[in-house]
Amino acid sequence: MATDTPDAYDDLLAAYRRVANVRSASGILSWDQQVMMPDDGTPARSQQLSTLSSLSHELLVDDAVADALEELDGADLTDEQAAVVREIQRKHERAVAVPADLIEEISETASEALPTWKQAKAEDDFEAFAPALRKHVELKREYAEHVDPDRDPYEVLFEEFEPCLSLERAEAILADLRETLVPMIEKIRTSEVDLATDAFTSLGAYPADEQESLCRDVLSALGYPWERGRLDTAPHPFSSGTTFDARVTTRFDESDPLGSLLSTVHEFGHATYTLGLPDDAYGTPLGEDRDLSVHESQSRLWENHVGRSQAFWESFLPTFVEQFPQAADVTPREAYEAANQVYEDNLVRVEADELTYHLHILVRFEIERDLISGDLDVAEVPAVWNDKYEEYLGIRPETDTEGCLQDIHWSHGNFGYFPTYSLGSAMAAQLYAAADAEIDDLDGDVAAGEFDALHEWLTEHVHRHGARYETNELVERATGEPFTADAFVDYVTEKYGALYDLDSV
Amino acid sequence: MATDTPDAYDDLLAAYRRVANVRSASGILSWDQQVMMPDDGTPARSQQLSTLSSLSHELLVDDAVADALEELDGADLTDEQAAVVREIQRKHERAVAVPADLIEEISETASEALPTWKQAKAEDDFEAFAPALRKHVELKREYAEHVDPDRDPYEVLFEEFEPCLSLERAEAILADLRETLVPMIEKIRTSEVDLATDAFTSLGAYPADEQESLCRDVLSALGYPWERGRLDTAPHPFSSGTTFDARVTTRFDESDPLGSLLSTVHEFGHATYTLGLPDDAYGTPLGEDRDLSVHESQSRLWENHVGRSQAFWESFLPTFVEQFPQAADVTPREAYEAANQVYEDNLVRVEADELTYHLHILVRFEIERDLISGDLDVAEVPAVWNDKYEEYLGIRPETDTEGCLQDIHWSHGNFGYFPTYSLGSAMAAQLYAAADAEIDDLDGDVAAGEFDALHEWLTEHVHRHGARYETNELVERATGEPFTADAFVDYVTEKYGALYDLDSV
Repeated sequence: MATDTPDAYDDLLAAYRRVANVRSASGILSWDQQVMMPDDGTPARSQQLSTLSSLSHELLVDDAVADALEELDGADLTDEQAAVVREIQRKHERAVAVPADLIEEISETASEALPTWKQAKAEDDFEAFAPALRKHVELKREYAEHVDPDRDPYEVLFEEFEPCLSLERAEAILADLRETLVPMIEKIRTSEVDLATDAFTSLGAYPADEQESLCRDVLSALGYPWERGRLDTAPHPFSSGTTFDARVTTRFDESDPLGSLLSTVHEFGHATYTLGLPDDAYGTPLGEDRDLSVHESQSRLWENHVGRSQAFWESFLPTFVEQFPQAADVTPREAYEAANQVYEDNLVRVEADELTYHLHILVRFEIERDLISGDLDVAEVPAVWNDKYEEYLGIRPETDTEGCLQDIHWSHGNFGYFPTYSLGSAMAAQLYAAADAEIDDLDGDVAAGEFDALHEWLTEHVHRHGARYETNELVERATGEPFTADAFVDYVTEKYGALYDLDSV
Repeated sequence: MATDTPDAYDDLLAAYRRVANVRSASGILSWDQQVMMPDDGTPARSQQLSTLSSLSHELLVDDAVADALEELDGADLTDEQAAVVREIQRKHERAVAVPADLIEEISETASEALPTWKQAKAEDDFEAFAPALRKHVELKREYAEHVDPDRDPYEVLFEEFEPCLSLERAEAILADLRETLVPMIEKIRTSEVDLATDAFTSLGAYPADEQESLCRDVLSALGYPWERGRLDTAPHPFSSGTTFDARVTTRFDESDPLGSLLSTVHEFGHATYTLGLPDDAYGTPLGEDRDLSVHESQSRLWENHVGRSQAFWESFLPTFVEQFPQAADVTPREAYEAANQVYEDNLVRVEADELTYHLHILVRFEIERDLISGDLDVAEVPAVWNDKYEEYLGIRPETDTEGCLQDIHWSHGNFGYFPTYSLGSAMAAQLYAAADAEIDDLDGDVAAGEFDALHEWLTEHVHRHGARYETNELVERATGEPFTADAFVDYVTEKYGALYDLDSV
């Protein structure tokens, strides 16, 4: 273990902090753009964000970083320092590998593709979007070639979002999900159980103002520290910020109070990860989230394992009824059923339930992997999409609007992002099972509206480490097991087996 | 006139746009900090702003700027291009002249001085603040020495805020204000006229929510384009933004509806200048405000010449009464009187009226000028302050809290800022008189709630030019006369002569 910190290490941190500060400044500008900015503010905002984006790139490839890294090569470092160097080195090398003009071309292609995609989706016109998608595929293959010409380009792209979780492990997890979920959903289709799916939706309207008030209640109940956050509305809910200021957003559907409520709980999970990062490591890799799968594990843990549990509704239903007296006769069991219905004919990913969701992801993952490998041509996407929906979900989109044009991700040129959603769910199940095994009576805590022990467990085992460990090591240290789909499979088998009485099907 | 734009000119603009974008990004972060940020967000925000601040400095002194400027020296440029080069050159030279570590020391001194000043003000303890003020004075003298060792250092500091309005002209204007206002205020003291000063304040409380609604009404009435702006509350009202997104803030005192209303009109004036800058020059000096005096002229024109006019109350009072029916019996004349009372015993600048305000400024101007010249020691500030208040305003502060500790500016190390407030008022009067002479029936327009002609005049003669002309040239082109205090003297002599029947005093 090192006794003296090398000067080069301090130099590296100082240089990296500038990158981190420019990025978190961009985060505020993006939040503002989605939540506060007046309609006509876009021209200035685009330029501000573009300047900050190229500055953060320039600061990352700067000689100050390169020189410090070179000097630290082989230096005597503590484990933590070595982790910091590893993380900065990875980002630096990737940034150096890709020419700035390619980055710019990808960014411009994305700017142009976004309105093209919007219009194509509105007009059910995949042909109109195809050239932009083709260009993105070509540019991203080129990008991957620059990073590493000897590896599967999809793997390289996946690492943008999951820098240290192997694609092999990700594929194994996704394969397990498919193997479990396709037959389980088929069984649910034939189940005769009648869940109280309209327990809330049959009770009239839920005004947005009152839903917002309820969302504040649920955030307070879960322990959201308002002195470090805020709740606002946004067209597409998200969370963003730093450990000092992690904000959440939601949106409202007046016919469905569970949508905004569970989406708020989801974003709370993201925020609580950010808030759990160590204050004193702000601006360094030890104060940064590990990656998208870990982030998503936190949002899904709170949304699914807490917010969709019967225990949660035992504690929270009175608060709900106080806001919406029309629900006075709903029981915790009915609320639980309403929050866990499996949709048999839903084509839209963002409206999917906890089970079918992953089949939506699988379709996208398989298609984008084949697009990048060259095994699939862009023109074939709609047909392949529809075939896969029929195969996995037993339903077939009638239009591309509700089919392969539904998501924004490919218009951004993001390939390798979709799988992180499912990986997050699998990780959430594994972490929750481990927390449940270690906390005296976690279910009882949730039923009593008591979340301190869970917060402590997550902070201790996940949040406080930042990017100290690589993904699998983080999970293994937290749960004692390598990261697999096993806990998720156990969780859904037990939960949905009981809900839909699948043993009798 | 040039036929081809030199490449170096495009390079200069491209380099400068990055500076402008970083600065406007900082503006959003500051707005967010004052309006939206949760309480504990400061540690990250300070670091983000500090990084952006040093980046904008580095970009401004960068070789890309220096090389382009050198190449353009003597180049064949259009008048507009020459103005752009002049503005960027001035900023570049000043940034290069001052060592980065001095900038940083000033910034750190300000960070430390702020809480010191707050506490000193709370505890009426000037001694506690004196060392910080002394350090600021020393650092700013050093700063001025770097910029130009041969000139009056106060003049150099004044140019931070007024880069192209000579201190000589400013001093002449301030002297005229003093000469007119000191005797005028003394006369008002002895006037026996009884204005309807409590026309609104005698009518009970004005809830903040309804005041906010009224502020939205006044913004709409004046023509604020909501698609390019928003209204929020902030502890210290301000406006900020770009031509695409210029926001205003206000605050509420439930006993006094005129405070938030006129403060909103003031910030509207600032915003309308920003909004009138040409869209296509965003990020260049042609799309930037000229300086603080011009900015303040726009806020004061709308606040004083419109918002405090009897004509305005003829059109706006019904809207006011709709929001606050308790004011149903107030007449436009009474509203006009209430909005224009001269306070005889007010010691606080930010609560001053249109006349005494400038004497508050004169005290500060004279003191800070002598501090920087070395003619006044920091220890003498309280006594000199109190003497000057007695001399100019006939009142003497009993504590430094309500005396020389009342303003935040010196804790920031800002010397040369205060005079721009008065200069703005003088310029507002000169511009309004010129607009009044050119617009068919401006008073009738205001009385009819019709502001298009005034907006057009201001955009045509002031806003659209950005920093194209130096300050005095801008005023001279707009009004046909050099910038003086004459119009202001005429305006207050007529207005307050009539209000207080001063001929009979």
